[in-house]
Amino acid sequence: MTFPTRGYAAQSATTPLAPFQFERRAPRPDDVVIDILYCGVCHSDIHQARNEWHGSMYPMVPGHEIVGRVSAVGSAVTKFKAGDTVGVGCMVDSCQHCASCNTGLEQYCEQGATWTYNDKDRQDGSLTFGGYSERIVVSDKFVVSISDKLDLKAAAPLLCAGITTWSPLRHWNIGKGSKIAVIGLGGLGHMGLKFAKAMGADVTLFTRSPGKEEEARRLGADHVVLSTDAQQMAAVARQFEFILDTVPSPHDLNPYLDTLAINGVICLVGLLEPLEPAVQTAKVILGRRSISGSAIGGIGETQEMLDFCAEHGIVSDIEVIDMKDINAAYERVVKSDVRYRFVIDMASLKAA
Amino acid sequence: MTFPTRGYAAQSATTPLAPFQFERRAPRPDDVVIDILYCGVCHSDIHQARNEWHGSMYPMVPGHEIVGRVSAVGSAVTKFKAGDTVGVGCMVDSCQHCASCNTGLEQYCEQGATWTYNDKDRQDGSLTFGGYSERIVVSDKFVVSISDKLDLKAAAPLLCAGITTWSPLRHWNIGKGSKIAVIGLGGLGHMGLKFAKAMGADVTLFTRSPGKEEEARRLGADHVVLSTDAQQMAAVARQFEFILDTVPSPHDLNPYLDTLAINGVICLVGLLEPLEPAVQTAKVILGRRSISGSAIGGIGETQEMLDFCAEHGIVSDIEVIDMKDINAAYERVVKSDVRYRFVIDMASLKAA
Ligand SMILES: [Zn+2]
Ligand SMILES: [Zn+2]
Ligand SMILES: [Zn+2]
Ligand SMILES: [Zn+2]
Repeated sequence: MTFPTRGYAAQSATTPLAPFQFERRAPRPDDVVIDILYCGVCHSDIHQARNEWHGSMYPMVPGHEIVGRVSAVGSAVTKFKAGDTVGVGCMVDSCQHCASCNTGLEQYCEQGATWTYNDKDRQDGSLTFGGYSERIVVSDKFVVSISDKLDLKAAAPLLCAGITTWSPLRHWNIGKGSKIAVIGLGGLGHMGLKFAKAMGADVTLFTRSPGKEEEARRLGADHVVLSTDAQQMAAVARQFEFILDTVPSPHDLNPYLDTLAINGVICLVGLLEPLEPAVQTAKVILGRRSISGSAIGGIGETQEMLDFCAEHGIVSDIEVIDMKDINAAYERVVKSDVRYRFVIDMASLKAA
Repeated sequence: MTFPTRGYAAQSATTPLAPFQFERRAPRPDDVVIDILYCGVCHSDIHQARNEWHGSMYPMVPGHEIVGRVSAVGSAVTKFKAGDTVGVGCMVDSCQHCASCNTGLEQYCEQGATWTYNDKDRQDGSLTFGGYSERIVVSDKFVVSISDKLDLKAAAPLLCAGITTWSPLRHWNIGKGSKIAVIGLGGLGHMGLKFAKAMGADVTLFTRSPGKEEEARRLGADHVVLSTDAQQMAAVARQFEFILDTVPSPHDLNPYLDTLAINGVICLVGLLEPLEPAVQTAKVILGRRSISGSAIGGIGETQEMLDFCAEHGIVSDIEVIDMKDINAAYERVVKSDVRYRFVIDMASLKAA
């Protein structure tokens, strides 16, 4: 018995998202059936819907920042029960036995994780459909618990923007006494500021736009540096042990490398483009600096992050939209005109 | 009382090295006076002599792989005495109080280390002259002990080629159980193979030239991969936790990034050029890989390396030359026609 499910889908790279009816699978023994309450809008949803990363499969139901309530569970599920508040992020499956999976790094599964949408189910080969829909059916291993203490709609972006910034900050042991910087104040950057501050670090925001000081401080920045101002940049030379670079478009890393301390690391989380202009290797070699990167995070650390958020009252800053307004929201995301994440109230799907 | 000293110098970027007479300073209280026995020929000597890195100062006496015998010491020197066998590497001074100097990383001194040649002395502003000479006067803090158990002429390259490869292998904790690779089989690469093997790692050599298997195995490689062979490269995908990249000319890092395991690091030690062609950031992000770099090593770890070499009988593979043959040797270095380092027998200076 499958579930007739309503959602919004792109039928091609060039058509706007529109209502779409499809079937969710009958739950397997390890499946959790989730009524979706909220789904965040990630910039990658747009890249995928428009085939900007190539390999898009249609119809496509985007959405991988999913918060919902469990409505039913398969016979083997013990961790969740109907009524639980849960989340689903970018992945819905992985091989479960490679070195990456065995160490809680399912996002780096050697056989490739199964992505929440625009991918094929490992068991039946069917297309995966994401969170712009009323319901999702997911293996319990890829479902995380969300505290009802959190504002659930504002918690949705934690499932992608949150874990993408949390994971590298934890991996590089950012905490009390750390001096770090975040480049860019968007969906990822604003979460980076919140997390780094809550972890106890001294936090600097690099931004190209003047006038963001007050906003940045509200979100957790201790200092704001205008990256277009050579004097401000020179004043922070060799300062940072870690820089979280959230900028999604090509940009020159060289001025930032100068601001890294000896052994400092700049970690790319938003840039899926060739590294241009060319990095001057002397800046790396003469200081043992590193250019690194990080992709979302494992399921275990996603749960750890959500627990930390419940404890510290951390959620995303969001604008709630109705499902029918998704195409207009996409246009605003492309123009970086959102503070700092759109979240779809899935109750609006009934009216759409 | 200064020391009249004979050496070989470049008088300009375009003139060959030729005999040159100059004065070494009268020893300061902390100085060690060293009669030079051997001096290695580093590729950077050529870059500097020919002003290929710009900022060269003439006359220039190159040479920073120096092995010699102490002939006298200043009044405050307790660590060395006449007759001791010692070495001097790339640095002869640093600020001695910055964060880098305080942690044994004098090569990253925030005020800039004083280089053994083509630099200015911190106290009197005079030009520093390197090891292509019969004698050098150096602060005891920048002199290291060398065991007479070692073949001293073959120990000279340890002072630059040795420490340059030793330091990153130690920093990234390479040892028993590590699976690492070395790119390039030259002065640096052959030391990388020897050290990594002696540290207990499983060692692969990446080379672009077929027929190096036997030689590579003799030097410590367990495996040899022809980097121009796509099939061989695919067979080592995701294999290495660490890659020591010793190649001095621009080359594409992307095929090597694919061979790094999750969390793997590729460390540049030879490339002082822009990183072109562009790195595909997806290869970094989707595996939390790092592109890093390392410059020589601190004085403390240089001593540590020399002690390790004495214990394990490790020296460089060299060709000994007379001082008068230095210009011909430079031509061969430029053509990579040396196995694997030229060392000048300084006794030949008397005849030059
Ligand atoms: Zn996302
Ligand atoms: Zn796996
Ligand atoms: Zn050198
Ligand atoms: Zn210093």
